[in-house]
Amino acid sequence: MEPIALSAALASFTEQWSPRIVTAVNDYDVRVAKVEGDHVWHVHDRTDEFFLVLDGELHISLREPAGERTVVLPKGSVFTVPRGIEHKPYAPAPTAILLFEPTGTLTVGDRHDDVPDHVDATTGHALR
Amino acid sequence: MEPIALSAALASFTEQWSPRIVTAVNDYDVRVAKVEGDHVWHVHDRTDEFFLVLDGELHISLREPAGERTVVLPKGSVFTVPRGIEHKPYAPAPTAILLFEPTGTLTVGDRHDDVPDHVDATTGHALR
Repeated sequence: MEPIALSAALASFTEQWSPRIVTAVNDYDVRVAKVEGDHVWHVHDRTDEFFLVLDGELHISLREPAGERTVVLPKGSVFTVPRGIEHKPYAPAPTAILLFEPTGTLTVGDRHDDVPDHVDATTGHALR
Repeated sequence: MEPIALSAALASFTEQWSPRIVTAVNDYDVRVAKVEGDHVWHVHDRTDEFFLVLDGELHISLREPAGERTVVLPKGSVFTVPRGIEHKPYAPAPTAILLFEPTGTLTVGDRHDDVPDHVDATTGHALR
């Protein structure tokens, strides 16, 4: 195995909201994705989900017990969505993110709103 | 919980080779560290270890079955050291890294050479 430049990984595909698996850490994946516009409201019942913004800006709306709010992650920021919290990512402009989550985690979670055509319901694609 | 800017996390401490825990993802930690010079040869018998270079350049020497080699990670590159592979990180200049590994993972692994004074043998410190 050799180191992987995230810029090269991101340059290897064009699809939005369609994560690529960069490497595995035990039974977790490190994934990168290009995103813009709305994802879909969804929830992972059994796992937290980690976001790092590599470029651009990611908004994550959260439906917490206390109510709904949106956190904003500028480039270089991180946030973990706790398991069981319904959330919807959104990017106002082309954005690149890195995700850390258990292998097999579905992009649209265990429960979700109707998945629009521009969102890829996947457990991540291999990097080519 | 609020998003955390990695730049602010890194600005909150000065110690080298002394990771700070930025957030948790299930039973894994996301840690950041400032590093320069040599770490120590060590091995994690039961876990892989993920490195992302945020700034600077990290070298990781590896003692693999086929022999010893060193991988070089420029800024923006990632690498996973497989469990059971003895390794020694080294940074030729001040460098910032992000790590994913199970909570409780010791910086010097399960087996290691003598730990020099400049290396902090820790499972990670809380971010203040």
